[in-house]
Amino acid sequence: MQVSTPDVTLVANIIRGLAMDAVQKANSGHPGMPMGMAEVGTVLWTEFLHWSNEEPEWAGRDRFVLSGGHGSMLLYSLLHLAGFPVSLDDLKQFRQLHSKTPGHPEYGDTVGVETTTGPLGQGFANAVGMAIAAQMEAARFQNHLLASRVFVTVGDGDLMEGISYEAATLAGHLQLGNLVCLFDDNTITIEGHTDLATSEDIGARFAAQGWVVQRCDGHDPEQIRKALQNATAGNDKPQLICCKTTIGKGSPHKANTHDVHGSPLGAEEIALTKQALGLPAQDFFVDPHAREVFAAASERNEARRRQWHADMDEWAANNAKTAADWRAFRSREMPANLLEELAAVAGAEPAATRALSGNIVQKLAELVPGFVSGSADLDPSTKTRIKKGGSFSAADRTGRTLHYGIREHAMGAVLNGLSLHSGFLPAGSTFLVFADYMRTPMRLASLMKIPVAFVFTHDSLMVGEDGPTHQPVEHLATLRLIPNMHVFRPADGKETAAAWTHAVSRRDGPVVLSLTRQNLPALPHAADWNPQQALRGGYVLIDAPGAAATIVATGAEVSLAVDAAKLLAAGGVPTRVVSMPCVELFLQQDAAWQKSVLGTAAVFTCEMGRPEMWCQFTGRLDRCIGQSTFGASAPYKVLAEHFGFTAENVAARVKAAL
Amino acid sequence: MQVSTPDVTLVANIIRGLAMDAVQKANSGHPGMPMGMAEVGTVLWTEFLHWSNEEPEWAGRDRFVLSGGHGSMLLYSLLHLAGFPVSLDDLKQFRQLHSKTPGHPEYGDTVGVETTTGPLGQGFANAVGMAIAAQMEAARFQNHLLASRVFVTVGDGDLMEGISYEAATLAGHLQLGNLVCLFDDNTITIEGHTDLATSEDIGARFAAQGWVVQRCDGHDPEQIRKALQNATAGNDKPQLICCKTTIGKGSPHKANTHDVHGSPLGAEEIALTKQALGLPAQDFFVDPHAREVFAAASERNEARRRQWHADMDEWAANNAKTAADWRAFRSREMPANLLEELAAVAGAEPAATRALSGNIVQKLAELVPGFVSGSADLDPSTKTRIKKGGSFSAADRTGRTLHYGIREHAMGAVLNGLSLHSGFLPAGSTFLVFADYMRTPMRLASLMKIPVAFVFTHDSLMVGEDGPTHQPVEHLATLRLIPNMHVFRPADGKETAAAWTHAVSRRDGPVVLSLTRQNLPALPHAADWNPQQALRGGYVLIDAPGAAATIVATGAEVSLAVDAAKLLAAGGVPTRVVSMPCVELFLQQDAAWQKSVLGTAAVFTCEMGRPEMWCQFTGRLDRCIGQSTFGASAPYKVLAEHFGFTAENVAARVKAAL
Repeated sequence: MQVSTPDVTLVANIIRGLAMDAVQKANSGHPGMPMGMAEVGTVLWTEFLHWSNEEPEWAGRDRFVLSGGHGSMLLYSLLHLAGFPVSLDDLKQFRQLHSKTPGHPEYGDTVGVETTTGPLGQGFANAVGMAIAAQMEAARFQNHLLASRVFVTVGDGDLMEGISYEAATLAGHLQLGNLVCLFDDNTITIEGHTDLATSEDIGARFAAQGWVVQRCDGHDPEQIRKALQNATAGNDKPQLICCKTTIGKGSPHKANTHDVHGSPLGAEEIALTKQALGLPAQDFFVDPHAREVFAAASERNEARRRQWHADMDEWAANNAKTAADWRAFRSREMPANLLEELAAVAGAEPAATRALSGNIVQKLAELVPGFVSGSADLDPSTKTRIKKGGSFSAADRTGRTLHYGIREHAMGAVLNGLSLHSGFLPAGSTFLVFADYMRTPMRLASLMKIPVAFVFTHDSLMVGEDGPTHQPVEHLATLRLIPNMHVFRPADGKETAAAWTHAVSRRDGPVVLSLTRQNLPALPHAADWNPQQALRGGYVLIDAPGAAATIVATGAEVSLAVDAAKLLAAGGVPTRVVSMPCVELFLQQDAAWQKSVLGTAAVFTCEMGRPEMWCQFTGRLDRCIGQSTFGASAPYKVLAEHFGFTAENVAARVKAAL
Repeated sequence: MQVSTPDVTLVANIIRGLAMDAVQKANSGHPGMPMGMAEVGTVLWTEFLHWSNEEPEWAGRDRFVLSGGHGSMLLYSLLHLAGFPVSLDDLKQFRQLHSKTPGHPEYGDTVGVETTTGPLGQGFANAVGMAIAAQMEAARFQNHLLASRVFVTVGDGDLMEGISYEAATLAGHLQLGNLVCLFDDNTITIEGHTDLATSEDIGARFAAQGWVVQRCDGHDPEQIRKALQNATAGNDKPQLICCKTTIGKGSPHKANTHDVHGSPLGAEEIALTKQALGLPAQDFFVDPHAREVFAAASERNEARRRQWHADMDEWAANNAKTAADWRAFRSREMPANLLEELAAVAGAEPAATRALSGNIVQKLAELVPGFVSGSADLDPSTKTRIKKGGSFSAADRTGRTLHYGIREHAMGAVLNGLSLHSGFLPAGSTFLVFADYMRTPMRLASLMKIPVAFVFTHDSLMVGEDGPTHQPVEHLATLRLIPNMHVFRPADGKETAAAWTHAVSRRDGPVVLSLTRQNLPALPHAADWNPQQALRGGYVLIDAPGAAATIVATGAEVSLAVDAAKLLAAGGVPTRVVSMPCVELFLQQDAAWQKSVLGTAAVFTCEMGRPEMWCQFTGRLDRCIGQSTFGASAPYKVLAEHFGFTAENVAARVKAAL
């Protein structure tokens, strides 16, 4: 069903008016992109995209991602016209506190926003993750009704960011034919014309990455339609459509300039633009016929949705077990005894927590169908491969381990896309030091409050011979600083089971697992110790009546603290040892628990990383035993000695400070 | 002058033996890459690369960067054979504490190592920076003798990392014909064959990015030579040579497998490999003829170097002023009164520190010729453009502002390359929240102890309407955690002048400048206040006899603290205000200064970011006024009110806690 060219033009101009007016009213925002992509957005939403304002979370819907989130008024205008709960009053509250129309689209703030975008390149890589998820879901449940499409708009900025290349090559390799990228090719960035900073042949680049590339005039509805028809005609490669557009299209004096990218046009230029476009001067004007065009599109979509549900019901009737599995997958159901099951298979110490984790991962995959894993080319080291699940590939869409290649940044954003899509609980791994390559998607997962497990092994100087470029020092502390991030650094198999339990059970944010390269001894847990204690973030591992000191430690350093406490006790300083695998969970406990764990003796901490944050527990930096300088290349036992991480030295530090 | 094919083969096999033996002795390391790239390294170093073991820092030398730093034994073997101070005993100390042969090449540890590599993709982008630097230096001093080349080897991993695409597109756009990249095309990564994770056509990709692409058999000296001859024949585009190689070449059972990537071959396989290569069984064997081959290459290089010096002397004699300028540039000379000069031009408040910084940058460019600037497509906002310097481009190599495009990650690594090359003091800017895109190069600058200014504006929630994706919360704290990083957050024009003075004067590491988007009022400095105080990291801004509280603040929050102190004083709580623009500098002061600044009253801190690190001064988290959650999209004054950053609230918090 085609929308007539005059109707597309009408709707596009209404979008232009709304974008100009909202930005002008807020006195802040980005009108250029919505004005440039108005026809593309209109044709996509009225003729191709499957959406439902009655059931916005419809499982059969297509996903639409606006990667250049600064163009949020395009998305808000489309949602408004499409009858989603974004009213004209909401548009008038653009960029105001607690509105549904924040400066950049925020997942959770606005119905119909599929992911939070703004930091460039992220949305594009999220879309790759969503396209993978759609393929996995449809294949796993053998149901083509779940094979929805993902459409993503990108700008020059998105495509200059390294993450977009990483994600594009991955998408090409995986032959994600359900992914359609619409490139807003307007050759303008903030500093000016793109020829200031790039001469790349974007079509040739994407072709080299395994994509099908088309070009169209982004203001010509027929060309846009033709390109989208080709791109959705059942393909086995991802699709790029380079839409030649004019930024700020319609503005007599500012179109095709960087002035229109990120500033209001000003009342005078808005008046002139509206005049040129044949719009009335009225603010936030919506022609009733524009609503009719969208109402017709909505009707078509609702018919499609009703048919989809009917087909799904039929499928469910014929595939009762699979359908039940699918519903369980979608609702992310968890076994009640997950922690016990995982703790039972962790294996015996001495072992590295990465190895214990590797055992747990296999059981987790059995018990939690939504769990999928993978690494940035480090599975042999990080041990996150699901051994009985196969690899996700162009040939096998049911595989449960993803091979991201040496692309940490894209991995992070693809994990977010997997999590956002449906019932997946994704984990991805690399070395802790390389968390620096993927901080932005981690931050966005925290902001979006979505479940993702970021697994980082080789989590201290004990990396050893690879030296300071591979040895994290500041990373644990910096990850804990991301608001709403939970960092779990387990000290043995049971705590590792607790870490994984938390990672797949948490529903309001991501979890970092920090795991060792080196072997750790068994902890002196009482026979009846319940690993649920680890889920309180911190607990007393060894108590000492009349303790003169408490040492709080995490991960590998817990056993070091245990040894130091023995030395101290032998030297007449009874010492309590607290294991604190997750500081954030500990701080969520009530004051009584916190007090009972920390006790009344002087508190010391021991962790092989930057110590400053621990002052919140010790009150003094000299009671925080840590590592503030870069490491060195040497066998790890030599480094432990060299940097003072021995029981003797820890005990001496405590004794000296008392 | 060509080295015979049997001689190349002999040298390559010696390198293979050294790599196998060193890794075996260390029981750790990566033999596969050195064994695969042995012929390429040999032909490059004996026939093309300009180097000097007599004057390793020779200004006319070419740069060699091993981007895949895990292949360090290739570089160490070449340095050893080339007569650099890397002895056989040093090779035997591979990966041991304090050796010259750490696991990855570390700048400063080993003569001849031009940059620290290991985190993949970084070395490649450093090389782009070095190639820019060589072009800038030669153009600025109009001396072709300075137009040296940069050769960089990369592996599949380097080329999968997003930073490599960003840097490659920049290099292509800038037509860096002096850059030659040798791609170790062995199709093996840690998890297995590259077809697990990539199908990219790397030649087509680089062609799309503006490079000239050649292919060769990486084990055939004649093909390598021919490709290098073409690549160095005077080009106006960067050059990629895809060298088809076999990882672990020579090993009968492990060549062409991922087993040989990162593990010792084992004694048995080493014996078999040596047999197959015609090497004696002896450990660390170096055939005397291999030394002769390199001695001949060294002689050619020394003759070249002598001629270069003679030509430079002649040039200097004919261009005395320019030559003196060049020497000043190379030695990074600074005017003695730099801070005074900069403080004089900062301009008057109320103003944003980014705007005051913009004024200072112009004066800095006048006074410090090595200073070059640029941004990741944000100059209109970050104000770092050098207005009288022009833009560096393919057409103008003298330009002093670089347009990095929306490529923060590559910008960071290019800044490192500029700094490493010669006398440049580079600065690059973006918004503070996007520091997350470029943490790895920032960490490497800190590790290498090189001068770079990382400039971040829009440094708090006061970004306003753009919302939480654009509002830093944790970033100041996370940057301070990078060992050896100095973070300067100035509160007015004079402190901003101090920040820039420190940024271009510091010689043992990088400096972050954190600048506001919003206007700040003038600080109540005494008329005779000397901005040198800011270089002590923290100082008393307002003293209060008999103070009951001290508020330590940074940047924008200093004036907030001043207002709160006024309210407190009026309410009977005399309060001192300390401005602490650089915590790291403050902690370097003697105890007496620190004590005199902090005083004896209860210490509070106020900074619009994660507060935990401030506990080292306050002893208690509830005395650290900060921001622990994500921000929101709203006008900045609304946000200040909403999140409690008002003088009334700060005063109330202090009063309540006393």
